[in-house]
Amino acid sequence: MLPKALSNLVESLRQLPGVGPRSAERYALNLLNRPPDVATDIAARLEQLHPGVNRCSQTFVFTEPGQDVSPHYLDDKRDKQLVAVVENPFDVIAIEKTGEFHGTYHVLGGLLSPLDGVEPDQLTIAPLLQRVKDDKVSELIIATNASVEGESTATYIKNMLGKTETLVTRIARGIPVGVDIEYTDQVTLRRALEHRQTL
Amino acid sequence: MLPKALSNLVESLRQLPGVGPRSAERYALNLLNRPPDVATDIAARLEQLHPGVNRCSQTFVFTEPGQDVSPHYLDDKRDKQLVAVVENPFDVIAIEKTGEFHGTYHVLGGLLSPLDGVEPDQLTIAPLLQRVKDDKVSELIIATNASVEGESTATYIKNMLGKTETLVTRIARGIPVGVDIEYTDQVTLRRALEHRQTL
Repeated sequence: MLPKALSNLVESLRQLPGVGPRSAERYALNLLNRPPDVATDIAARLEQLHPGVNRCSQTFVFTEPGQDVSPHYLDDKRDKQLVAVVENPFDVIAIEKTGEFHGTYHVLGGLLSPLDGVEPDQLTIAPLLQRVKDDKVSELIIATNASVEGESTATYIKNMLGKTETLVTRIARGIPVGVDIEYTDQVTLRRALEHRQTL
Repeated sequence: MLPKALSNLVESLRQLPGVGPRSAERYALNLLNRPPDVATDIAARLEQLHPGVNRCSQTFVFTEPGQDVSPHYLDDKRDKQLVAVVENPFDVIAIEKTGEFHGTYHVLGGLLSPLDGVEPDQLTIAPLLQRVKDDKVSELIIATNASVEGESTATYIKNMLGKTETLVTRIARGIPVGVDIEYTDQVTLRRALEHRQTL
């Protein structure tokens, strides 16, 4: 009943994460009601996505095509012995915005989740262990989310490092700046008490 | 910091309705982590969207390219004097699924919303009034949503028809089948009482 071009697009859009039939229909209808260039512009950028993105062979941060190693890793001012381990490249952006971190990064490309079929060999854990050796990494800051997956990935990396001299730290959890204690959820509050700092 | 191809795509995806920076990033990252054909498949279908969708010159239902008039309107078994007026083509699909409606449709292409800049001349109201005359429409069932925009569009159409002999009806509002009275919201319950039917 709907033209094939429209139902095909709805079906394709449902491949995006968290997009159900209603959202897919809303996106398709919205595009149809706007000038064709909006749709063709998104199409062009989708076509350019994979050819336009490279992964750094050391840090697995996304780089421009042809850039084998990320500018951070090549930058002498950045400490190669201090490595922040993150889930994805957007975490790198978030940490960079603080302007406080002068080490380098390592993008895991996901978090361990056996139920979803994400096993260690699908993440960049082996190259991370290699890097720890090669660069004589002194500290690994594991900055994964405080989810079950984030915690078990952190623990897995810690265990795999075994008896190296590398210090393994975890990014601090606590009450966010600007949030009242009375409005803090219990898990966060418990963590904040547990990891209290000496004044 | 992100490759241009990735930040460009994130920016483009934000043009979809209700997609903020977080969702756009999530969509882009998900596509990047999957085989390139997922992205290029969506791209191809976006390219085919506008060329692959035509609008029926009578009912404004979407049709296949080259199909000037929708199959419903050409079907002799369907009553051209009974017209269901709907906001968009997905409403047509929903009504067709009931298997109960044997009239024809008229797609408005939106609802009046002066605040969003949607004025009567952006909807297919003029062609609808023409059709009422040409097809000697006996009943117009206005099946727009029960929102402020849906109601004001219904009232506007009723007023524009003026003193014709066409009966203008509104799709019934009431308690959905399968929902308990105690769990029904007050607006719906009030409407259901107001439009009570004789047994």
